[in-house]
Amino acid sequence: AQSSVTLFGVVDAAVSYYQTNSKYVNTALNVFNPSNPAAALPRPDVRQSQWVLSSGNYTGSRVGFRGTEDLGGGLAASFWLEAGIANDTGASVTPIGLAFNRRSTVSLSGAFGEVRLGRDYTPTFWNDNVFDPFQTVGVGAVAISMLLGGAGSAGTIGSQIVNPNYVRASNSVSYWLPPNLGGFYGHVMYALGENTKYDPGSVTPDLPNTQRTGRYAGGRVGYANGPVDVAAAYGSSVIGDNYFAGLTRYLNTGNVGASYDFGPAKLYGEYSHVELQNDRSVPLLSGPSGDITITGYLLGVTVPIGPGMIRATYSHLQADLNNVAQVPVFGVPDPKADKLALGYVHNLSKRTLLYATVAYTKNKNGAAIPPALPPNGNVGYINPGIAELVSPGAGYRADTAYGYDFGIRHVF
Amino acid sequence: AQSSVTLFGVVDAAVSYYQTNSKYVNTALNVFNPSNPAAALPRPDVRQSQWVLSSGNYTGSRVGFRGTEDLGGGLAASFWLEAGIANDTGASVTPIGLAFNRRSTVSLSGAFGEVRLGRDYTPTFWNDNVFDPFQTVGVGAVAISMLLGGAGSAGTIGSQIVNPNYVRASNSVSYWLPPNLGGFYGHVMYALGENTKYDPGSVTPDLPNTQRTGRYAGGRVGYANGPVDVAAAYGSSVIGDNYFAGLTRYLNTGNVGASYDFGPAKLYGEYSHVELQNDRSVPLLSGPSGDITITGYLLGVTVPIGPGMIRATYSHLQADLNNVAQVPVFGVPDPKADKLALGYVHNLSKRTLLYATVAYTKNKNGAAIPPALPPNGNVGYINPGIAELVSPGAGYRADTAYGYDFGIRHVF
Amino acid sequence: AQSSVTLFGVVDAAVSYYQTNSKYVNTALNVFNPSNPAAALPRPDVRQSQWVLSSGNYTGSRVGFRGTEDLGGGLAASFWLEAGIANDTGASVTPIGLAFNRRSTVSLSGAFGEVRLGRDYTPTFWNDNVFDPFQTVGVGAVAISMLLGGAGSAGTIGSQIVNPNYVRASNSVSYWLPPNLGGFYGHVMYALGENTKYDPGSVTPDLPNTQRTGRYAGGRVGYANGPVDVAAAYGSSVIGDNYFAGLTRYLNTGNVGASYDFGPAKLYGEYSHVELQNDRSVPLLSGPSGDITITGYLLGVTVPIGPGMIRATYSHLQADLNNVAQVPVFGVPDPKADKLALGYVHNLSKRTLLYATVAYTKNKNGAAIPPALPPNGNVGYINPGIAELVSPGAGYRADTAYGYDFGIRHVF
Repeated sequence: AQSSVTLFGVVDAAVSYYQTNSKYVNTALNVFNPSNPAAALPRPDVRQSQWVLSSGNYTGSRVGFRGTEDLGGGLAASFWLEAGIANDTGASVTPIGLAFNRRSTVSLSGAFGEVRLGRDYTPTFWNDNVFDPFQTVGVGAVAISMLLGGAGSAGTIGSQIVNPNYVRASNSVSYWLPPNLGGFYGHVMYALGENTKYDPGSVTPDLPNTQRTGRYAGGRVGYANGPVDVAAAYGSSVIGDNYFAGLTRYLNTGNVGASYDFGPAKLYGEYSHVELQNDRSVPLLSGPSGDITITGYLLGVTVPIGPGMIRATYSHLQADLNNVAQVPVFGVPDPKADKLALGYVHNLSKRTLLYATVAYTKNKNGAAIPPALPPNGNVGYINPGIAELVSPGAGYRADTAYGYDFGIRHVF
Repeated sequence: AQSSVTLFGVVDAAVSYYQTNSKYVNTALNVFNPSNPAAALPRPDVRQSQWVLSSGNYTGSRVGFRGTEDLGGGLAASFWLEAGIANDTGASVTPIGLAFNRRSTVSLSGAFGEVRLGRDYTPTFWNDNVFDPFQTVGVGAVAISMLLGGAGSAGTIGSQIVNPNYVRASNSVSYWLPPNLGGFYGHVMYALGENTKYDPGSVTPDLPNTQRTGRYAGGRVGYANGPVDVAAAYGSSVIGDNYFAGLTRYLNTGNVGASYDFGPAKLYGEYSHVELQNDRSVPLLSGPSGDITITGYLLGVTVPIGPGMIRATYSHLQADLNNVAQVPVFGVPDPKADKLALGYVHNLSKRTLLYATVAYTKNKNGAAIPPALPPNGNVGYINPGIAELVSPGAGYRADTAYGYDFGIRHVF
Repeated sequence: AQSSVTLFGVVDAAVSYYQTNSKYVNTALNVFNPSNPAAALPRPDVRQSQWVLSSGNYTGSRVGFRGTEDLGGGLAASFWLEAGIANDTGASVTPIGLAFNRRSTVSLSGAFGEVRLGRDYTPTFWNDNVFDPFQTVGVGAVAISMLLGGAGSAGTIGSQIVNPNYVRASNSVSYWLPPNLGGFYGHVMYALGENTKYDPGSVTPDLPNTQRTGRYAGGRVGYANGPVDVAAAYGSSVIGDNYFAGLTRYLNTGNVGASYDFGPAKLYGEYSHVELQNDRSVPLLSGPSGDITITGYLLGVTVPIGPGMIRATYSHLQADLNNVAQVPVFGVPDPKADKLALGYVHNLSKRTLLYATVAYTKNKNGAAIPPALPPNGNVGYINPGIAELVSPGAGYRADTAYGYDFGIRHVF
């Protein structure tokens, strides 16, 4: 049996500057409140800023081992172990030290396609990533990935939709179509929640998240041929459940993306629809369901110029909070964010390049997309909780964010 | 000086199902208790189950570096750094991230044999491993390894004999006989506890486990020639001590194993005797010593068929708790477990194979051998504490366990 | 583009013995205290000792990946990822598992020199390391590195000067002179603190260490030609700050070292001056500044004999505590330590060697240099706090330390 084992990796470092501005707003209908006159007075904006050495802002920094064994008859076995690294500090990107958290799979492939076991990207993340010219990393990352990848750090809405399976899922089984389908491609993934099930159910420990949480199911189909690439994906993550409350919380994502390479320029677009769904075995008689709907889209372009490339994107997202609380007569204004990103890449070789990116985000109505996610950056906003968003009043709200990356990326 | 450095590893993943059943029993002589009549009523069995993606259930998943340098004159220096991985999640198998926890040694070898420094298997674990057709991993693992390797997770008895040095010991110095002794082999290991010693002793901090805990000493001798392999080992671990109480707790293990390859089938057997010994500088005047004796044995067979192999084992263990408490007139019934395991292995190449294993465990009198150990599985039982085992009464007890593995193993 | 990727490492293990002695002293002018007559009575010395298997005591144990890509035109890109390992236990030397904590850099180099981003040695540590015949590891390490590298474990003074950037700094940008300057070499490093800055400053959270802590700036210049090597370095670490108190705590280090190879023997020397400086935006009107000055020096020699080498050093350090408290009339006696180290190295090949080292440390007036630092050793002293050092009285004080290493080092 022939075989090959490859040691590979990426070391990507940048000097980055992040800045956020929070402004004081008063959304009360009666601006002057006699019992708290100070609330109506204007207060200065608050600016938070940070210079950092960051890592993985053009291509995620990593080190890994991968290999394939030809088993004969068209059959092959392969493995892929890939660990994220934070090369600015030498640490891993997980709190527990180096781990193959980026990808850890063993596969069997043949004419039938490929069956893959372990930890890998989710189908739904693929579209967010490949149809973003900034590939969801660095200050230029598409707005929807800043929100969904933030693990609660992206402010008011983010804290409601913390989903460990947004980018990748552990304990997954996936099936991939074979590559010879005339440009059609696709795969499906199921990730086990691995929770213990009790029978009789009444002995289940009365804790949240004991039965279904962590489960992910999704799939993606697409077509790539010559200059065109188009794909659609749908996936559902269980992000919370409670046996005794009869409640399961799903985060359902559907997205579609496309790119077309005209030669002098390549255009990108993606539309994404995300629903936080509170599924109850006994329907609520009254009161808000707590469901949230988020829509996002991106328009992007890359323009090769000599040994370099210009990248630019506009992305938008918007969340409907009308089901989160007993809304006032005129509804809750949708939190919104608009983001512009512009970058230049200078290739020194196929493996090594320099890059510069600038990005600007405008948050409205309580959205709080930051300029960068941890571990690279941790400047946040002075932001209200979701309860304050749905009841008018005075307080600080996330406003604008600026981010700059000046870096080098080396692949080995 | 010639040299070679090798990058090697194993990626082994399976879809596994684990199930336990706990049943309600009443061992009181007077079954009806007037003050608590409900205790005598039958209650339904409790079943706990779990589907998981597991790792390392045919061969422990790992990644490592090893090499040898020829120093001339028959002398060689070598190193071996081997890290366990949980490829279902990409994590390491240690709570702290990737570490060379499987083996981490530097050696000097020559005609005299080999001196090895670092972390390695203990001599006593070798017999449990090599004379078990399931090699102590997966749902088929021999019962004694499920108990001693469980670090307290294997229920009532297990919590008494938590021993970090059952499988491997850190901080060890070992000496290995050279390989040219006509089939005779052997090695001895001493692992330092590394605890601080105080002089005068009276300034020792009054904490448990401050002086000798962690120390391991053991050895193994054997003979392998043609179809026969037979070996015996003895080792002693200090699993607890207290200077002021004058108490040292030893876990002493003696075992002997053998295999004989008849060609159409290979037979395996092992007998193991484990003693928890509470050594006191001032003997107890009265009361139970707290000592526990555990005996275990295994009978196994492997049958090659074409490119595949059938594996089957029966293993048993039994613990004597009569010295744990003031026992009633008729003694404490011995906790016992019987385990049957059956598997089929299909080789796709020398490095890649598919496997399926089923296993059944029957626990009696408070033994609580689970279908799988963490991190792969964590379904337990509803099980009484050791105090309830020695005083008759009503409550749930571990009963049966079922385990299934369907997996792929790839070596690189 | 040509390229090369190298897997490299060091596995170094030793059997080591560490011992400390603490003695009871009474520095009160009036030795007999009527209210506490027992304090004046002599008490027995306390000895603490430890046998360990240690790692990295001749050369720091590690495993790493490094490579260089020729970009043409004299330009090259390179990366270096190097993780410390504790091969006695298989663990990493960080609490969080394997991480590239020793070095993690990406570089661009050419005729202009080299720009390097990531984690690396500080310029000031280089002199402590290269002009110490024991290279700051093992029981023979120069006294100043035992104090500054101890992260608070080196007793009374050490706890005041905890500096995570003594040996290495994360988030650094460094510039290195090119190698063709006729023997002159040099580099400068700036490491970002990465702390969030608030504007207006009044919204800064009222916590210590929020703005500048972690920042390091330093440089080193030297000349190496034939038998001579001489270098000087200066660096400043921010080890604490508080916005509202207007306080920034610096640890400033200047050192100069030299070696001269006479052939039959090579001589080494270093002088180091370290200042803990409490910089206040509003000067103190009265009271001690809290500043501490530490001076250290080393004299060393190595003598090659056949395939081996003898190493010997004498090192000294001394701390001025007169600004730490309202000092008595005659001042606070300077804590001092004197250390002697002697070793023999036997080369089995260029990559493999055996070594033995013995070291003796004498502490005075509250200095508490231990025989070894964690994770290898953790025997300490019974030592007073800094407050007790500046006010005379009776209590235990660190006295002598003994250390022995017998080891093997293998490079791959």
